[in-house]
Amino acid sequence: MITQIENGGVTAPKGFKAAGYTAGFKPSGLPDLAVIVSEDHSPLPAAALFTKNIVRAAPVEISEENMTKSNGKIAAIVLNSGQANAGTGAPGHQDGLETVQVAADALGCQPENIFICSTGVIGKRFDIEKMKSAIPTVLSAAKSTLEGGFDAAKAIMTTDLRMKQTAFQDTIAGKTVTVGGMCKGSGMIHPEMATMLGVISCDASVGRDVWQKMLKKAVDKSFNAITVDGDSSTNDVVCGLCSGASGLTISQNSAEADALQSLLDKTCMHLAKSIARDGEGATVLIEVQVKGAVSDEDATRIARTVTGSSLVKAAIFGHDPNWGRIAAAAGRARADFDVSKLKISLGDHLLMEHGNPVPFDAVAASSYMKEKAEASAEHYLSDHDTVLITIEVGNGPGEGVAWGCDLSYKYVEINAEYTT
Amino acid sequence: MITQIENGGVTAPKGFKAAGYTAGFKPSGLPDLAVIVSEDHSPLPAAALFTKNIVRAAPVEISEENMTKSNGKIAAIVLNSGQANAGTGAPGHQDGLETVQVAADALGCQPENIFICSTGVIGKRFDIEKMKSAIPTVLSAAKSTLEGGFDAAKAIMTTDLRMKQTAFQDTIAGKTVTVGGMCKGSGMIHPEMATMLGVISCDASVGRDVWQKMLKKAVDKSFNAITVDGDSSTNDVVCGLCSGASGLTISQNSAEADALQSLLDKTCMHLAKSIARDGEGATVLIEVQVKGAVSDEDATRIARTVTGSSLVKAAIFGHDPNWGRIAAAAGRARADFDVSKLKISLGDHLLMEHGNPVPFDAVAASSYMKEKAEASAEHYLSDHDTVLITIEVGNGPGEGVAWGCDLSYKYVEINAEYTT
Repeated sequence: MITQIENGGVTAPKGFKAAGYTAGFKPSGLPDLAVIVSEDHSPLPAAALFTKNIVRAAPVEISEENMTKSNGKIAAIVLNSGQANAGTGAPGHQDGLETVQVAADALGCQPENIFICSTGVIGKRFDIEKMKSAIPTVLSAAKSTLEGGFDAAKAIMTTDLRMKQTAFQDTIAGKTVTVGGMCKGSGMIHPEMATMLGVISCDASVGRDVWQKMLKKAVDKSFNAITVDGDSSTNDVVCGLCSGASGLTISQNSAEADALQSLLDKTCMHLAKSIARDGEGATVLIEVQVKGAVSDEDATRIARTVTGSSLVKAAIFGHDPNWGRIAAAAGRARADFDVSKLKISLGDHLLMEHGNPVPFDAVAASSYMKEKAEASAEHYLSDHDTVLITIEVGNGPGEGVAWGCDLSYKYVEINAEYTT
Repeated sequence: MITQIENGGVTAPKGFKAAGYTAGFKPSGLPDLAVIVSEDHSPLPAAALFTKNIVRAAPVEISEENMTKSNGKIAAIVLNSGQANAGTGAPGHQDGLETVQVAADALGCQPENIFICSTGVIGKRFDIEKMKSAIPTVLSAAKSTLEGGFDAAKAIMTTDLRMKQTAFQDTIAGKTVTVGGMCKGSGMIHPEMATMLGVISCDASVGRDVWQKMLKKAVDKSFNAITVDGDSSTNDVVCGLCSGASGLTISQNSAEADALQSLLDKTCMHLAKSIARDGEGATVLIEVQVKGAVSDEDATRIARTVTGSSLVKAAIFGHDPNWGRIAAAAGRARADFDVSKLKISLGDHLLMEHGNPVPFDAVAASSYMKEKAEASAEHYLSDHDTVLITIEVGNGPGEGVAWGCDLSYKYVEINAEYTT
């Protein structure tokens, strides 16, 4: 049975150490440098997924190159917040390379075994001198306790209001296996990963190619199924490491692989939802489930289009059960369906059937959204804080789901008053 | 030489009458029924473009059918605001058919010669009894003066703050030819036409097929190049009629056809920009010009993606010269380009060159946006009210342009507090 580990994060699985540190990149003086490192500093099998934006930050270029050079063997991930090191040209690239070198020297590994990530203001270089002096300190401070993971997760926050981490555990083939993770949001979030950094740790032993496939699968149904504002960024990365410290070795297409995939999916899904829930200015998490489409791809496209609609998002912020906007968004998703079979529900409230609106209790439907937002404010990411929109588009086998958040005044405030 | 006609609209070209009327569809008591009709009630060559959303309102279905049945011969366009007659099922369809019949009876033409449009709240039927009694009145009140066009343009407004009409005139082959138009916005606006109704009138004589091609061409570079919020609606239509009253007959691929195309483009472009400028909550019009792409398609896709980015829109509202968000939006447009050739300017301020930011006067760049917003508030749609973003992505021949508006608190307010 899969259980969630209280206060668990990247150090919940065995074989990892982590730390957070205030290097001085953020004007606020908040923690801004995180590391996650293999316990004995040896390179571990790593999988990674990178932004599809063709404008890519220096650390994205460097980390992808290192993954190729090292054939996916990573000893440490170094993440800074404050400056995104994107649009910083050759000097920014040099800063990234120096970061890699200093970390490799401190750990006694090759530079290609270091993975770097940056997040924060685009077009700004971080202070390389501060980076160089901080890295040995933060690496030697890394702890295998939950506290280490907690500190790391805090240090990668930018406009995030909440720290984002989780860990899930299961017994697989008699061994206790744990998958942990941390991530940050929270604007420029759209399918295909966006201003988000995610780190996944796992203490099973998985071959590099199998691990890459597993991570890709988990990311597709989690991080790639969320949208905040339709913008995808220059810095997005998810990187996952396997320590093997649980003693369980996974072979492809085995029952154990399926069990580990479930654990990985659960971890990524929780992290992804926490990003959507903490979308800039959001008051509530929105889940859109689509059924009956011709294919899963069509269903997912409809779910994402509805989740991404500014008009639907603003209606939910206003607690308006506006089925017309939901139907209109579904209709423009470039998925073919028979409108006469369109059925839309909001929670338990049926709003539309056979393509036509049905009488419903508008006050109760509005209260439903209000209650979810209130629950959401009180119990963050509980089971009761999600506005659920269910859409049926026919009798096909296609299903899909997407998560997002509402559009509030606060989103505009955050993004109009953010300083370049 | 093309000149704009002061206070010109759909009745500026010869051969048309129009009127606006308060039928009582809008709770506000504002005008809500418009007609444009051929001066002698005879059906005229008509061209039309319809929403690509697969969820389509009853009037869209009916008008498309009438265009087919009549082989593109329309005597009158009847437009109501207040209720969109979308998602209204069979009863809504019946309302549309009755509207058509009453108008045909009043004019003495066939039902298929009537074109109907609705805009307003989705899922609401209009009061068919009010419609039936109002149609003969509004048709007999139609005038060929500019006042008739003005009244019609006012009667199709919903959340529009400004009435939208224009007319341009040129001398072609010795004849004075005029193209006029009216339209409404102002949310759910995205390429491929969205919560927008547009009516174009022209007093040249153009064969139906040629006229359809000309209108399509003009709409592609005008109404299809604007975005307010990425949502496209169930009701979008542009319909254009030719009276032939100027005495000029246009044959395909002639110099006269080119001259008329220019006039038509100019009219549609002006109307499209007026929609973008009056986007819900907008303070300023944004124009994004892209050059150097591999193809016009790529350039246009980049222009539209930048124009549609919530982050770019919020930055412009906040007068923040945020080139990073512009570059990030360009990078996710699914157009391939060499980032090392990326060049971005904001007005005369060069922000980025060779893929890297360059030093610029941030205060002056911010003032540039502030001044445009101020000019925009004072002189609506003047030549000086547009925030211009110029993007070069290489040395290719591809060029494209798109228009949009900024994202303000007011957009959220309008769309969170709109009543279903």
